[in-house]
Amino acid sequence: MSFHMPDCAEIVRHALAEDIGTGDVTTDLTVDPGMRAEAHFVAKQAGIIAGTEAVRQTLMQLDPGIELQIHLEDGETAEVGEKILTARGSARALLTGERVSLNFLQQLSGIATLTSRFVALAVGTKARIVETRKTTPGLRLLEKYAVRVGGGRNHRFGLYDGIVIKDNHILACGGITTAVERALSQASHTLSITVECDTLEQVREALEAGADILLLDNMSTEELTEAVEMVEGQAMTEASGGVSEDTVAEIARTGVDIISVGALTHSAPALDISMELVV
Amino acid sequence: MSFHMPDCAEIVRHALAEDIGTGDVTTDLTVDPGMRAEAHFVAKQAGIIAGTEAVRQTLMQLDPGIELQIHLEDGETAEVGEKILTARGSARALLTGERVSLNFLQQLSGIATLTSRFVALAVGTKARIVETRKTTPGLRLLEKYAVRVGGGRNHRFGLYDGIVIKDNHILACGGITTAVERALSQASHTLSITVECDTLEQVREALEAGADILLLDNMSTEELTEAVEMVEGQAMTEASGGVSEDTVAEIARTGVDIISVGALTHSAPALDISMELVV
Amino acid sequence: MSFHMPDCAEIVRHALAEDIGTGDVTTDLTVDPGMRAEAHFVAKQAGIIAGTEAVRQTLMQLDPGIELQIHLEDGETAEVGEKILTARGSARALLTGERVSLNFLQQLSGIATLTSRFVALAVGTKARIVETRKTTPGLRLLEKYAVRVGGGRNHRFGLYDGIVIKDNHILACGGITTAVERALSQASHTLSITVECDTLEQVREALEAGADILLLDNMSTEELTEAVEMVEGQAMTEASGGVSEDTVAEIARTGVDIISVGALTHSAPALDISMELVV
Amino acid sequence: MSFHMPDCAEIVRHALAEDIGTGDVTTDLTVDPGMRAEAHFVAKQAGIIAGTEAVRQTLMQLDPGIELQIHLEDGETAEVGEKILTARGSARALLTGERVSLNFLQQLSGIATLTSRFVALAVGTKARIVETRKTTPGLRLLEKYAVRVGGGRNHRFGLYDGIVIKDNHILACGGITTAVERALSQASHTLSITVECDTLEQVREALEAGADILLLDNMSTEELTEAVEMVEGQAMTEASGGVSEDTVAEIARTGVDIISVGALTHSAPALDISMELVV
Amino acid sequence: MSFHMPDCAEIVRHALAEDIGTGDVTTDLTVDPGMRAEAHFVAKQAGIIAGTEAVRQTLMQLDPGIELQIHLEDGETAEVGEKILTARGSARALLTGERVSLNFLQQLSGIATLTSRFVALAVGTKARIVETRKTTPGLRLLEKYAVRVGGGRNHRFGLYDGIVIKDNHILACGGITTAVERALSQASHTLSITVECDTLEQVREALEAGADILLLDNMSTEELTEAVEMVEGQAMTEASGGVSEDTVAEIARTGVDIISVGALTHSAPALDISMELVV
Amino acid sequence: MSFHMPDCAEIVRHALAEDIGTGDVTTDLTVDPGMRAEAHFVAKQAGIIAGTEAVRQTLMQLDPGIELQIHLEDGETAEVGEKILTARGSARALLTGERVSLNFLQQLSGIATLTSRFVALAVGTKARIVETRKTTPGLRLLEKYAVRVGGGRNHRFGLYDGIVIKDNHILACGGITTAVERALSQASHTLSITVECDTLEQVREALEAGADILLLDNMSTEELTEAVEMVEGQAMTEASGGVSEDTVAEIARTGVDIISVGALTHSAPALDISMELVV
Repeated sequence: MSFHMPDCAEIVRHALAEDIGTGDVTTDLTVDPGMRAEAHFVAKQAGIIAGTEAVRQTLMQLDPGIELQIHLEDGETAEVGEKILTARGSARALLTGERVSLNFLQQLSGIATLTSRFVALAVGTKARIVETRKTTPGLRLLEKYAVRVGGGRNHRFGLYDGIVIKDNHILACGGITTAVERALSQASHTLSITVECDTLEQVREALEAGADILLLDNMSTEELTEAVEMVEGQAMTEASGGVSEDTVAEIARTGVDIISVGALTHSAPALDISMELVV
Repeated sequence: MSFHMPDCAEIVRHALAEDIGTGDVTTDLTVDPGMRAEAHFVAKQAGIIAGTEAVRQTLMQLDPGIELQIHLEDGETAEVGEKILTARGSARALLTGERVSLNFLQQLSGIATLTSRFVALAVGTKARIVETRKTTPGLRLLEKYAVRVGGGRNHRFGLYDGIVIKDNHILACGGITTAVERALSQASHTLSITVECDTLEQVREALEAGADILLLDNMSTEELTEAVEMVEGQAMTEASGGVSEDTVAEIARTGVDIISVGALTHSAPALDISMELVV
Repeated sequence: MSFHMPDCAEIVRHALAEDIGTGDVTTDLTVDPGMRAEAHFVAKQAGIIAGTEAVRQTLMQLDPGIELQIHLEDGETAEVGEKILTARGSARALLTGERVSLNFLQQLSGIATLTSRFVALAVGTKARIVETRKTTPGLRLLEKYAVRVGGGRNHRFGLYDGIVIKDNHILACGGITTAVERALSQASHTLSITVECDTLEQVREALEAGADILLLDNMSTEELTEAVEMVEGQAMTEASGGVSEDTVAEIARTGVDIISVGALTHSAPALDISMELVV
Repeated sequence: MSFHMPDCAEIVRHALAEDIGTGDVTTDLTVDPGMRAEAHFVAKQAGIIAGTEAVRQTLMQLDPGIELQIHLEDGETAEVGEKILTARGSARALLTGERVSLNFLQQLSGIATLTSRFVALAVGTKARIVETRKTTPGLRLLEKYAVRVGGGRNHRFGLYDGIVIKDNHILACGGITTAVERALSQASHTLSITVECDTLEQVREALEAGADILLLDNMSTEELTEAVEMVEGQAMTEASGGVSEDTVAEIARTGVDIISVGALTHSAPALDISMELVV
Repeated sequence: MSFHMPDCAEIVRHALAEDIGTGDVTTDLTVDPGMRAEAHFVAKQAGIIAGTEAVRQTLMQLDPGIELQIHLEDGETAEVGEKILTARGSARALLTGERVSLNFLQQLSGIATLTSRFVALAVGTKARIVETRKTTPGLRLLEKYAVRVGGGRNHRFGLYDGIVIKDNHILACGGITTAVERALSQASHTLSITVECDTLEQVREALEAGADILLLDNMSTEELTEAVEMVEGQAMTEASGGVSEDTVAEIARTGVDIISVGALTHSAPALDISMELVV
Repeated sequence: MSFHMPDCAEIVRHALAEDIGTGDVTTDLTVDPGMRAEAHFVAKQAGIIAGTEAVRQTLMQLDPGIELQIHLEDGETAEVGEKILTARGSARALLTGERVSLNFLQQLSGIATLTSRFVALAVGTKARIVETRKTTPGLRLLEKYAVRVGGGRNHRFGLYDGIVIKDNHILACGGITTAVERALSQASHTLSITVECDTLEQVREALEAGADILLLDNMSTEELTEAVEMVEGQAMTEASGGVSEDTVAEIARTGVDIISVGALTHSAPALDISMELVV
């Protein structure tokens, strides 16, 4: 399976501007503008690679003539010490772009790696692992991409492309039935309706009101099992809340369709990767 | 000590645009535009709070009349279940802005909390804990702020406000002495010069060349001790590489002036915080 | 029913910049900066009003102290000669902002008026009238809003918030079943799947493949009737193509759930409205 | 005569962003990234073509390697069923860009077509047909271009490149003579001065004050004839107000130099054009 | 006479961003955020003041609550040591904004002062002093404003709001007559036509072709006098080239309508002004 | 020595937009789109050339196929009448871009030329000539570049990359010692600390407090000499205030390390350069 990373030109441009500001004084003073070099991006830790395209964008914005050789495509596993990619071009561009390209590659590979661990724990069940909207401001598309690279699936992209009626909406609206009715009578017919349910009673009400997806929040595995049985495939079921590497397998076995995991994006540690220069 | 968060209006605007897109369909359909509510931001995990100003910005951009009551200022410690702040205003604004404001508050508080643990481990030494440039693209200023809130100090902000001659620059330039000479003869006189040293031999050369700061990279504590002695206060010393909660205390005791820690920003888990609505 | 127009600050800013450029030389030369005036926006043609908020935004960007009195809210019907709103403030702001505010108000009211005619023709059936993506570049949200004001409902907002598999996708993909399978196995679970069907055979295939919505394109009313019967409520049905004021009533009586009409946005004539100044 | 369309890269970029948002989910899921295809843009209705360059920009922004063959240049007439242009390139790019490129091409061709009808009705007189500032926010330059393609001429581009003293300015300023005097004594000498005249009395006053152009607003053809005689070529004359396909010929025969028509841009129906894919 | 400076919010924002970057470290470290102060802007050199509004914008963007007392309005003359304005507000804002506000005030006052010297030298003639397009990139509107403040008039604002056929256009086009004909037959009727003439022969040709304004370039005063006589008021005359404080009076006495002076904007020295703080 | 100009693509884009607005009507009407021409940029005045890259950017943005031949590189001296560069490409692009490219080239060459005069006057001393922050809003990087081209060195780039404690900071903070202490205890360790000293007493205090650089403001040459002796190389010394071509040599001979000169950027007259077209 091959992955196609969303366009990252703008965010890379922003990241370079943030880091370079008025100029990389060190490189400009110590490295000859005409010097050419080769740089190897090497894994210092094993994990799933995601974000090589961001490396390419970063270096290409600094040197349009940069040449990249990808040794490990996004989605492949790097062993410790393995070369991920090799870049050849202006030594200045490589040095100035080193940190920004690593920042992208390390963060996205960290997410892909963590996701793959959750996915592996749910193998053999029908549960898909999806991320939440707990993403880094400005990086949502890239982080959602990294989740896919790690074997996960995606939840909605924002507040605009799916109706998710949460406890607070129910509270503000006066009840699940009213909330779903309003959505059905006014929303675009192309949007699905999810309802957060904290109890089996709410599961029943949401189902009757016509919800497409039931978000089962912070339920015990017993409650999840019971909810799945009650629903009988008339709607999709999504488990969320308190999902960790310790609990995901058990939750997956309850028969839910979807398990959403905030930690995939908000707490994935960066994968350790470094750049080695050869002049 | 009171902290002043850098301006976050633009990044908050961007984060809201990313999340809201063409509109928060759920809230717009289920919550009356005139409804008012109160929201409590509550710690689900103990930690140092950072980023309340981003919460204010987020909610204020959605409802200019929002009222905020800060219970815990940035830098204060939240216990589990403790209220961090209370917001009163448009129920729609509170619901639409919930996730974005939490994304900022959780990520920044996570960094402050992790930083404070490193700082505590170095207490009693003169070593300052600083972050690196391994920050999230677009969020560097806020993340550096969170480091300060956690008791850390800051390293340079980017490639423009300090000269840091690393191994790759030395390689490209032909030697430490040449590199420092070039910097001295051409750079603005207001910029300090740091030289990365992997060996004691390099420490000696950098010192003689006129470096202001010696970055002692991946040295053992024995080597660090020896380097500090050799330098005798003629330059500042900075330890970096392989710094973890397990090793930081020992490194601090070698007498280095600065310890730079990448994990502060690239691998801090988010602090668990939630928003509770009262209508 | 009250309508809430999407934020138009940015598009208004852009429209003012486009019109004013380096300055409204006429007004700046002939009108005293301190002069105050009153302006009435008056309908020269009967129709449904939409876009008063754009008038407010336009005038307010030119004079933050402008005062507006709305005589006809969005969704109300203006008779010929009826005052829609009255603005009081800087005479310069009123004159400089006249054309831009009218451009918005006339175009959006034109769309609302045309939509209301289609909606009236479908009264008594369950068919909702919705627009298409044939909107003016840059004005989609406002034009979709005008459709709602005219009594219509909305289709998806863009290519991101709904899966619509059209004839060309089916062609490129190799068949309806394959296309739907790919969508089901990879898309976010919150997105609905529409399939364009040109024949009853395709209706059957799309239904079996699991489509949520069937877009019945350019079908005769006989075919539409037959398709609706075949579907039996297992999916939503949407008629499109060749819908005009002459044909919409008959199409609506076939029992389809949705009728999408491109002309609502791409060919609605502006409603004639003028601004009259009193100094 | 060949036409040169103004740069549309930015507005196309904006339109694509508006439509694609976080991604064309349908195309990304159903069409292989490497697939190539051919697309024909075909007229479903006869008319003057305008905007092929916007099609090229749209497709090129999605696939820089797209190849376009223009069968009908801007300004040429398409018959029903005639191919306007053929594009060859990435099937994904063609499908994702279909709607945006058609939206531009249909709207601009609609304006050119309507303009050509007005121009034809004034043939044999010296009157030039020009548009007004009643254009779509953000699209003025393109719409003015479409007017030229349809055989019309252009009025001023905005409030900055011509002085047009209208009734409201005269009201605010205290009289035509004062208004013209102020303009003469303060404006850049490169700007012409137009004065709106509702009566022959005003025509006389404006002429004496030194106006370059007299805008004869809502005058009967008798009044227009009389005004033209009175002016005797000492200034240009422009008829406006109530100009329709029914009245334009008669107005043109009064001898006015210019006839300005709001409907050219604010009420031109889109020309029906579709894209047909061949894989 | 009172002057109204064009909107400078955006350029001030840009200038502050350029100067402040990631933060005014000095002020943030040495001045308490709550401290208030008073700052006097004092002329160190006599001259005409222009740009006080830019000072207000700069300080207001840093402290929305800043209070300004203007002692000398734009257009008034400052003596050495005279207070121009006093600002009261946050000490941090005053210190951080000092340089940017002075940069605007000094540059614009320098232009106004230089312009006023040229204007004084032409007093008693009908010649107006105007600037050229030799302005600082990004600051044209402000610099043209400063020219007006100094008593000058403005030339066209850019390439879009006036037709100026220069020697190179004539060369490319094949002659003055052809060039003017093209402009008359295609340009908007609201734009005036200027033709650059290097010889009296060209003056005659341009006049016959129908030019509105004759730009007499680098002519001796004898030639200018002869040209003015030849034109007899049938067109405006503009002298340009080699205009200095030494020659402007003599040129003005030739009877030309306009004298354009590049030095007004490209070589005006800044007026010396400083900010004095009182805490 | 070869110079590398900072990226000017954005500022050139802005300058072209400012000048061209909705179109260069003159060129579009008089010059055939397919015509090609050659343009020579010729010095009308002797001086140091700076900014040829801005000419290339300007012309290239208008005609990506433009060809440039540089006769004089940045830093070389042009004699009167000497060709600086020759451009070949679209005649339209050359004519439309003439003014903007000259505006950059003339202003930057003006700064380089003035700087070189100051540098020549300090030859034989160790004093480096540097500019100040008195630069044109938006052009700081380019102007600082022109200073380097003229043989000067650069001061800090803005408020973010160096700590400069001025009289007003000292006033607000309560004294030099306190101010320096605060900076030492909180600032990034990579930033140097400058202290403005108006008296020898302050020089002593700043030195003891630990300042890296002493800014000796408005001191007589006697005071400067005494200050340099007192400092004995323990810090750098910078003279500023009242530096002119008349005084710089004498100031340089006092032994200061740095002389900062505001006039380099705020009052340099443009170098006279023109573009000559050959078709």
